[in-house]
Amino acid sequence: MTDHPLKAHIAEIPDFPAPGVLFRDISPLLRDRFPQTMDAMAGLFTDAEVGGIDAVAGMDARGFVFAGALAQRWGKGLVMIRKSGKLPPPVVGASYALEYAASHMEVQPGSGRVLLVDDLVATGGTLTAAADLLTEAGYAVAAIAALIDLTFLNDFAWRGMRARSVVQYDA
Amino acid sequence: MTDHPLKAHIAEIPDFPAPGVLFRDISPLLRDRFPQTMDAMAGLFTDAEVGGIDAVAGMDARGFVFAGALAQRWGKGLVMIRKSGKLPPPVVGASYALEYAASHMEVQPGSGRVLLVDDLVATGGTLTAAADLLTEAGYAVAAIAALIDLTFLNDFAWRGMRARSVVQYDA
Repeated sequence: MTDHPLKAHIAEIPDFPAPGVLFRDISPLLRDRFPQTMDAMAGLFTDAEVGGIDAVAGMDARGFVFAGALAQRWGKGLVMIRKSGKLPPPVVGASYALEYAASHMEVQPGSGRVLLVDDLVATGGTLTAAADLLTEAGYAVAAIAALIDLTFLNDFAWRGMRARSVVQYDA
Repeated sequence: MTDHPLKAHIAEIPDFPAPGVLFRDISPLLRDRFPQTMDAMAGLFTDAEVGGIDAVAGMDARGFVFAGALAQRWGKGLVMIRKSGKLPPPVVGASYALEYAASHMEVQPGSGRVLLVDDLVATGGTLTAAADLLTEAGYAVAAIAALIDLTFLNDFAWRGMRARSVVQYDA
């Protein structure tokens, strides 16, 4: 498979934020190729699919960049899935394991069909927890998307639904 | 002054996240009126002003929602100002005082004219620190915007530049 041309703008930083982790830094991509990045991300979905969703749900914090952009582009609502203690009550919460840490996320109750978006799929644990949490909060998860999928770390699917992504790393 | 109609979608939560703080919760606004919110925020700037900027710089985390949306809308780059330890090197950092805490922010070096955006102006301390930090990192701050300005808490200006806002609270 040929690499996506946007991949050249993602920096690889060894041992960040912890020893042994190779961090994919999207900062140069967002700074230098943001419109192209969002064109590619939006292109993961058909017009009919976009028409079927009510809101874009983004993961705190980098997911907010993509959720904000897609909600703006498509004229949709925006739902924030936040780290613990950031959203006022009422909230529904869930604990989850990260690639190199553990955390807790919260969302306010709501309804409607949402696209769940984050910057990256690593093990898929965060997205699984987020999709479960959105469901518990009253939303229907219509699709899942991320800019990057570290396919060598996961065989992620939530209730049979895979994450769509623009850039993949198989090592 | 008549209240902005979007204000009705901002919830007021007493004693969150700390006793004595009245939290303005934008979650319902983003969920139910995101397109209208971004129309109003974009409307703070003329086409000529928008033409003069290269990127939108957003504050971690809620500022990313607005930075993502505005960068998408205008076809600009996006710069992330992040909490400590989130961005890989090289970074430029600054400590600052919040309304009810203290924190540290970082940005990667860069260049060009940026619009600095966050969700809220409280005391203005965060935006002052962010504008100084962007300058130190090599950017030129062309304008500052926030969705909400708690005008009773600040007389904010950075080098004579005031923050533009959609919704103001004078108490």
